[in-house]
Amino acid sequence: MTYDFDRETQILSAGTSRWDTTISSAWSIGDTPNGGYAVASSLRAMAATAPDAATDPLSVTAHFLRPTLGAQPGHIETELVRPGRRASTVTASLHQQGKERIRLLAAYGNLGSQRPAEAMWDEEPELGIDPIDLPEPQDCRDRAQLEQGVDLPILSRLDVRIDPEFAEPGRAGIAESRGWIRFSDGRPVDVLALVLFCDAFPPSLYSLLGRVGWVPTVELTIQIRRRPAPGWIRARFRTTDVHDGSLVEDGELWDSEGNLVARSRQLALLLPPGT
Amino acid sequence: MTYDFDRETQILSAGTSRWDTTISSAWSIGDTPNGGYAVASSLRAMAATAPDAATDPLSVTAHFLRPTLGAQPGHIETELVRPGRRASTVTASLHQQGKERIRLLAAYGNLGSQRPAEAMWDEEPELGIDPIDLPEPQDCRDRAQLEQGVDLPILSRLDVRIDPEFAEPGRAGIAESRGWIRFSDGRPVDVLALVLFCDAFPPSLYSLLGRVGWVPTVELTIQIRRRPAPGWIRARFRTTDVHDGSLVEDGELWDSEGNLVARSRQLALLLPPGT
Repeated sequence: MTYDFDRETQILSAGTSRWDTTISSAWSIGDTPNGGYAVASSLRAMAATAPDAATDPLSVTAHFLRPTLGAQPGHIETELVRPGRRASTVTASLHQQGKERIRLLAAYGNLGSQRPAEAMWDEEPELGIDPIDLPEPQDCRDRAQLEQGVDLPILSRLDVRIDPEFAEPGRAGIAESRGWIRFSDGRPVDVLALVLFCDAFPPSLYSLLGRVGWVPTVELTIQIRRRPAPGWIRARFRTTDVHDGSLVEDGELWDSEGNLVARSRQLALLLPPGT
Repeated sequence: MTYDFDRETQILSAGTSRWDTTISSAWSIGDTPNGGYAVASSLRAMAATAPDAATDPLSVTAHFLRPTLGAQPGHIETELVRPGRRASTVTASLHQQGKERIRLLAAYGNLGSQRPAEAMWDEEPELGIDPIDLPEPQDCRDRAQLEQGVDLPILSRLDVRIDPEFAEPGRAGIAESRGWIRFSDGRPVDVLALVLFCDAFPPSLYSLLGRVGWVPTVELTIQIRRRPAPGWIRARFRTTDVHDGSLVEDGELWDSEGNLVARSRQLALLLPPGT
């Protein structure tokens, strides 16, 4: 394995439905490993638990119970809840230092398979969400240039470019984050990378408020809609709903051919800056 | 218990982390109990498993593994994954006739609690989604009047009124379902009812295509945002994304005071009519 992401999300079988892994500190926001990164080794274990043909996560829900620990080993336990013809449900838990950190529930299937004709409508509809317009990546702002009040080791691994309209707090007047993303080391994008990319942009409240405090995710659900074409992924995240100290943020990802490849939604808590 | 919904989602403690229940056939779509109804007794068991103060489901994810069986007993197993100060994670499984039917993962908390001042920002933002405009309930179409090609026992329990603009297939030109909902017997709306209401409208593809085949839900995630005020709930569901035999449908629910009370998203399969 030659790419950082593959090396740093490796799993090692350690018995029935159990895998060992190490959570790297290279993908952190401040001192805490990014959630989208922290789930990746668990997703590898879940894919290994699903039936062989069910290679792709169709839907992934993660509950973040406690922060994961960078540069620390951990182990993953999985259960095949129900194998199915088109969707198989798998659950997993990630543990470090004797404590469960993340609980996952996901449906796996095969996004590359051709359905037989009898499983299709005569006039099957096709609906999509058009990709957003963005300035070219070289005309966007590197995420590292945004004043976010926190160290971002993760930017050694990911190349994140923010639409300049959304890079100045308050300028856009809405809570939206949009831009481009790819791996820094040239690793090709795949369905596992899409999960990571759904959680790697600045909180979308940034464009409205500037530096935001800690916005810990309670629950993140991602639907993977297609295997992505090679190249940059473009993404948009919007917070449309903030109430009583929590928020819901929606995201969409498109591949270089303009196809919608992933949807995300998360419930996060809003903690005051400085806490 | 005087209301149908409470009587027909009753649970009976049957040992540590185990409850007995009976799934009614009164809430079915065709022969299959509605998914939003089928999860309700499990949510009661999950609320009983969460810490006492965590009375409200903040986020619920359900994976539908097999159809549930109407007029049949079942049992629910629960696990408190992680108690937390603001959110506690609980998982559950519903079994009938020796087979697991639904797996759930949810975060519970308290939507009525006042946060202490130190947990709030000086200028905490408040964002919402404006309620949709709808004709008055008496000017909408009863869901029973729509040609849906299936018996709907559930309409003996729920009063669902569809905006006339979205009641004629093809007329709206978009895949959207909108209208009002309440219990037929006058039961007040609460957070548990909101989960049911997120899955009780015609598939939003109906307004685009008319009669649709079976649209089985793989995964449904709901965020409850507030306890609802008494009265009718207004709702909108939109399918924005259909590809390769599956779709993502988003929903929003507002209470009688116009507050956003719930969000939903589901991944469903699209099976040809007649299968």
